[in-house]
Amino acid sequence: MIYFDNSASTLVKPKEVQQMVNLAMNKFSANPGRSGHRQSLLTGSEVENVRQNLADFFCFSNPERVIFTQNCSDALNLAILGSAKQNGHVICTENEHNSSLRPLQYLKEKGIINYTIVSQSEKKGITKNDIEKNILPNTYLIICNHISNVNGDKAEIEEIGKLCQSKNILFLVDGAQSAGHEEINMEKFKIDMLAIAPHKGFYSLQGLGVLLLSEKANISPIRFGGTGTNSLELNQPSILPERFEVGTLPTPAILGLGGGLIFVKNNYKEIREKLEDLTTFLHYELSKLPIKIYTHPDNANGVLSFNIPSLHSNEVCSILNEKWGICTRGGYHCAPKKHQSLNTLETGTVRVSFSYFNSINEVQKLLGAVKNILKSSKI
Amino acid sequence: MIYFDNSASTLVKPKEVQQMVNLAMNKFSANPGRSGHRQSLLTGSEVENVRQNLADFFCFSNPERVIFTQNCSDALNLAILGSAKQNGHVICTENEHNSSLRPLQYLKEKGIINYTIVSQSEKKGITKNDIEKNILPNTYLIICNHISNVNGDKAEIEEIGKLCQSKNILFLVDGAQSAGHEEINMEKFKIDMLAIAPHKGFYSLQGLGVLLLSEKANISPIRFGGTGTNSLELNQPSILPERFEVGTLPTPAILGLGGGLIFVKNNYKEIREKLEDLTTFLHYELSKLPIKIYTHPDNANGVLSFNIPSLHSNEVCSILNEKWGICTRGGYHCAPKKHQSLNTLETGTVRVSFSYFNSINEVQKLLGAVKNILKSSKI
Repeated sequence: MIYFDNSASTLVKPKEVQQMVNLAMNKFSANPGRSGHRQSLLTGSEVENVRQNLADFFCFSNPERVIFTQNCSDALNLAILGSAKQNGHVICTENEHNSSLRPLQYLKEKGIINYTIVSQSEKKGITKNDIEKNILPNTYLIICNHISNVNGDKAEIEEIGKLCQSKNILFLVDGAQSAGHEEINMEKFKIDMLAIAPHKGFYSLQGLGVLLLSEKANISPIRFGGTGTNSLELNQPSILPERFEVGTLPTPAILGLGGGLIFVKNNYKEIREKLEDLTTFLHYELSKLPIKIYTHPDNANGVLSFNIPSLHSNEVCSILNEKWGICTRGGYHCAPKKHQSLNTLETGTVRVSFSYFNSINEVQKLLGAVKNILKSSKI
Repeated sequence: MIYFDNSASTLVKPKEVQQMVNLAMNKFSANPGRSGHRQSLLTGSEVENVRQNLADFFCFSNPERVIFTQNCSDALNLAILGSAKQNGHVICTENEHNSSLRPLQYLKEKGIINYTIVSQSEKKGITKNDIEKNILPNTYLIICNHISNVNGDKAEIEEIGKLCQSKNILFLVDGAQSAGHEEINMEKFKIDMLAIAPHKGFYSLQGLGVLLLSEKANISPIRFGGTGTNSLELNQPSILPERFEVGTLPTPAILGLGGGLIFVKNNYKEIREKLEDLTTFLHYELSKLPIKIYTHPDNANGVLSFNIPSLHSNEVCSILNEKWGICTRGGYHCAPKKHQSLNTLETGTVRVSFSYFNSINEVQKLLGAVKNILKSSKI
């Protein structure tokens, strides 16, 4: 079996992650931040270490503003619903995932906001200019997907961040497909809110998202309840991170992320090179074949989409799976506006997405399978 | 170390749970419900099995209406915020956790609802009559904590459920402290929404809650985003469970719950007997001492609260922890109204909460420690 669906979830969990999860089940299984006894404090201390290490990784100076959520979609919901301003305007891009688009559409239908979906003027990704020309006097939030989960297009987030700062507009980056292998420096890039998916780029467990929240991002909670602090108050406490972390934390996934951070830091250069090499090699070889590639050759970010003419993407993925044991993803990738602009609303795309644990040999097998499908489809 | 804080989170995770979590990291780590390849389908099938087994456990006939959430607080938020009716009235009890009280208070302050907190007229728990006399013409929801996390008081949920059905009022049960060792038959008890905390009574991982949602409970989502279905639609899909499950599911915690369900089903009688025996023994022995017990002797539900006169609960817990290595929880237990009615707003309570993995021998050690503290505090 060859697994090329790492943009949905990385398959292989490194030993650093597995060890921490097993420690969470055997040593750190008390509830962190709920009681004053040794077991609870020990677990709490492990959780706070991960918060600190995550803040460090993204050059962010407020670990108490690192918020653990259910998943990256939940982090985006907190950022978008929590910052909503009556009669305000939001800008997002054609690369956004439904996890940004659907909360925006909900707010719009409730009569709270309006939003503009910005198109890409250049082939490689969203630029500062694409965003700038759409700013209105009431624009309070700009949402920018960092790397497209459909085809790897990459936005100029540093330039866009500086633009947001100069206009005093909140800047939310969806780092679901970039965090772990792309540079994201919250301070330098002037990012106010960063949402990440640890089960992807940090090779950790499903069941955890993170929202890093700058001091400028003064948002409201979207859930309410037990926080282990101010228990006698019926209102949500104002202290962070508790204000946004309701109920028991997902400790095993948090500790697993701690292991994932160690793995990524120890192998950062190799991970980046691996993703770049695999994507570049696949692109180069596919471009010799009579197929449609939707990924720019410069965007060697670990994600590549293509289609074989006259075949639906799901059909191709199904053959790859059944005949060759190769896991790719077909259809739509929860990013409808991107499919509109790629003109793939009817067919979707065959998406290949890599992790550090893939190899050139596996890509060669995929190429062989694609050639075979091309040959068969001509008959 | 003796761990008596199982109402916050069970410490010992049985092998059935640990094995499933490790399988989730090594065999079932693809994203369930996102792609059509074998790895995704295999993981998806495991997730659906747990959904079915949970439905069976609670005598509930709609597995597709078993909704996986971040934690029990998140499940309660979905139930309460998702069912909110403008100008409606909600009834809850003095035993509710902040995870019910705070969403209610939020809705009240937004001018959406009003709510009544019902007091206990009897010593052992909330009765049908306590609820019934507070029903107003616009009451659309009754929330009832099943077993109090403060002192183990137990509500008459079957009678209250039948009352709700006769009045056509939605019935939400907070089963955080009861599910796994108390009978909860959704069909027989006429429960519309049941929220549970798998890391407590099912000995599973932190990072998962569940809301079981009857067909009568036609609620709205509170988060929006990727569901793997209807990807081209900007509105949340209407199909369940996807309508309420946004983003990637916490697969390891779900599969862990699958293991927990097996463990609980295989040891159901023994678990119930153990909790009853330990609570009864502790109650009997403590009642010989000059201390204040807040738990009714008939409520041998695995939770017992007490105080040593003239000592704050946190002080007692601190001595138990430091001098005796015994983990209990002091202060408030996220249930402010219960502390008001127990007259413990100043001191909180020392809470002892058991799991199947505790022993009479451990309780004897606690009793020895309490006697020692009593002796020392007189000096």
